[in-house]
This record gives sequence, C-alpha cells and structure tokens, in this order.
Amino acid sequence: METDRDAVEPRDGRRARGARTRDAALAAAVQLASVEGLEGLSIAHLASRLGTAKSSVHAAFGSKEALQVAVVARTRDILIELVIAPALTFPGGVARLTALGEGWMSYLEAKTFEGGCVLSSASLEMDGRPGAARDAVAGVMREWLDLLTSNVERAVAAGEIRAEIDPAQLAFELNAVGMAANWQSQLFGEAFSYQTGRAGWRGLLESNKASS
Amino acid sequence: METDRDAVEPRDGRRARGARTRDAALAAAVQLASVEGLEGLSIAHLASRLGTAKSSVHAAFGSKEALQVAVVARTRDILIELVIAPALTFPGGVARLTALGEGWMSYLEAKTFEGGCVLSSASLEMDGRPGAARDAVAGVMREWLDLLTSNVERAVAAGEIRAEIDPAQLAFELNAVGMAANWQSQLFGEAFSYQTGRAGWRGLLESNKASS
Repeated sequence: METDRDAVEPRDGRRARGARTRDAALAAAVQLASVEGLEGLSIAHLASRLGTAKSSVHAAFGSKEALQVAVVARTRDILIELVIAPALTFPGGVARLTALGEGWMSYLEAKTFEGGCVLSSASLEMDGRPGAARDAVAGVMREWLDLLTSNVERAVAAGEIRAEIDPAQLAFELNAVGMAANWQSQLFGEAFSYQTGRAGWRGLLESNKASS
Repeated sequence: METDRDAVEPRDGRRARGARTRDAALAAAVQLASVEGLEGLSIAHLASRLGTAKSSVHAAFGSKEALQVAVVARTRDILIELVIAPALTFPGGVARLTALGEGWMSYLEAKTFEGGCVLSSASLEMDGRPGAARDAVAGVMREWLDLLTSNVERAVAAGEIRAEIDPAQLAFELNAVGMAANWQSQLFGEAFSYQTGRAGWRGLLESNKASS
C-alpha cells in the first residue's frame, strides 16, 4: 500500500500542478483573446505572455483550436457567474429579463475583459473559418438567445408581454442592444454611456408590454 | 509642343495605369479585409492574393496602416452607393429611415462582402489598437450614427416620431438591429432570416411613432 501511494501521489501532485497551470494559462488566454481576438490567440503568443515555454502551453491544451474552444468555454462560465446566475434569483419573465440586461451592462461597464467580450468579436471574426472554435461560439450564442427567448415566452404566458409578438424576434432585439453597447463602448470609449444600452433594453420590454 | 506631349504622355499613362492597379488592388483588399479582418490585412497577404509583387502593392499604398485607411474609405464609398444614396431619394424622417433599414438589410443579404461588413468587425477588432485605421472606422461609424440621429430629429420635427424620445437613443437602437443582423447572419448562416432584422427596424420606428 505504501508503495502504491508513493507511486500514485507524485502523479496526483503532477496532475494538480498541471490543472493549476492550465487554469492560470486559461485565465491569461481569455484576456489575450479579448484583445487579439480568438484567431489572434496562438500557443506561441500565450506562452510569451505567460513567460513560459511553448511546449508547456502545448502540453496543457494540445492545439490552437483546443485552446480556442477552452477559451470559449471559460468565457461562458464567466458570463454564467456574472450575468446569468444573479438573474436566476429573479422570477422568470420580465423581472429576469430586466436583470439579465442590467447584469450584461454592469459586466461590460466593469471591463471584465481587457478588450471587450470575447464572444461578440469572435462571432464576426470566425466567419469563413468553420471548425470546432466557431461551433463553440455559435453554440454559446444559441444558448444565450434561447435563454432570452424562453424568458420572453414566460413573460407572454404571464401576461407581462403582448401575446402577438414573436418571442425569438424580441430576443434578437434585446441581444442587439447589448451587443451594440459592447461595440460602441469599445469604438467610442468614454464617449459612450452604458445608460444608452440600459435605456434600449428597458425600452424594448416597455414597448412590448401587454396593455393591462 | 510635340516634344512636350511626348514627355508628358508616358508619365500620364503610367499614372493612369498606377491608378487602375491601385483601384483593382483596393477592390481585392476590401474583400480580403471582410474575411481576414482589417488587422489580418497585410501588404504581403494582399500581394499574394493579387499574384503580384509585395513591392508594387507597397508602392500603391505605402504602409499597412495606409492600406487599412484606404479600405475603410472604399467601404464607406460602397455603403454610400448601395445603402445611403438610394435612401436619399426619400424625404428625410421616417420614410428615409425606413429606406436606410431596407437598404442595409438588402446590402447584407446580397453578400456584397465575402466575409460580411468590414466596418462592423473592424470596430471590435481594432479595440486596443489606437491609430489612423481605428480613427477612420470610428469616424465613418460616427457619420452613420449622425445620419440616423438627424433623420430621427427630422421625424420628430415632422410629428412622425414622439417628441419625448432621445434621437441619439433611437439611432443607437436602429443601428443595433442592423449590426445584430449582420452578426447573426454570419454566425448562424442560412438559419438566420433578414426578415428578423427588417421586423426589428420597422418595430422600433413603429413603437416610437407619435400618437395621432
């Protein structure tokens, strides 16, 4: 047994160290991708940012595409933590949609990512580059639009939103406002106010309210 | 006089050929930038696409930054021709705003650029890369938002749009819908319908209509 443990522990130790290394590398990769784009993210570039050998970054991720997919998954986790989880404490429907918009604007305003939302820019950047990374981006954005749509549906069922509207259409419009806020804040910097994004989001919910 | 003309004509001929070369190179550069992004656009890359020497592309543009600025200016010309000029035949206000939205959606639907609108992706891509190219993108987008805003103002003055609204806010929302249509069509391809963009644009004008 002692022999077994001796044989196992170093391996576990190496695995834990490996996981910590991968985790730190992934945090740096998310920031790098936000500035350089998902396509600009290479193993060499990340290694140079981490001040480590290319071989160790390669060992942690395997390929550029696997690194890109891992960055998309990590970005998704961050968005769930910062935007979606807080909104889930509100009842489904308009209250939750309002919280999602507020959470999104606050997350942008906090400059969580050095270069703005990885997913927003990745979608435009990956056009014409089919593959696992692009599929990962499309998958996460599909999930996000579905979350908005299902909450619009609940709002319609609860009589909060007009029954005549197309829930996917309103979800498209809400998402458009958030994406444009990200885009304008990056393009115009301080000259853009997130209040414009907040007002746009609220205005869409307001103008589609069921008349009581 | 004969001597003068002889001395002048070849120079003019070279200049005309130079302008044609630059023009053809610029057309290719716009397509390349739509796929690779404004940052992915290099003189070497463009030369290889044109099957010509790097030195001749360099002679036509001078630097990567000057090439990027020229691509932004050409993209602006194309948008004026395809989207803005046709809308200027409609009276300022809601009719012109409606035509601008329809023109934008038709232009996206026609896949004028291989990889989608250069300006939309460039704005996200150029974040954290201050310089002439970024300023050119921000300048064109500012012009576009100002055009939308001034038409909302005319619509308010004409009693077509509610006087209580903030024209810049509605311009932001209209632009958001168009940008999102570009973004989703690139991310989801055939699964995205431009009717969603058209309905979003019309819906914003409708929900902000002055009550008669």
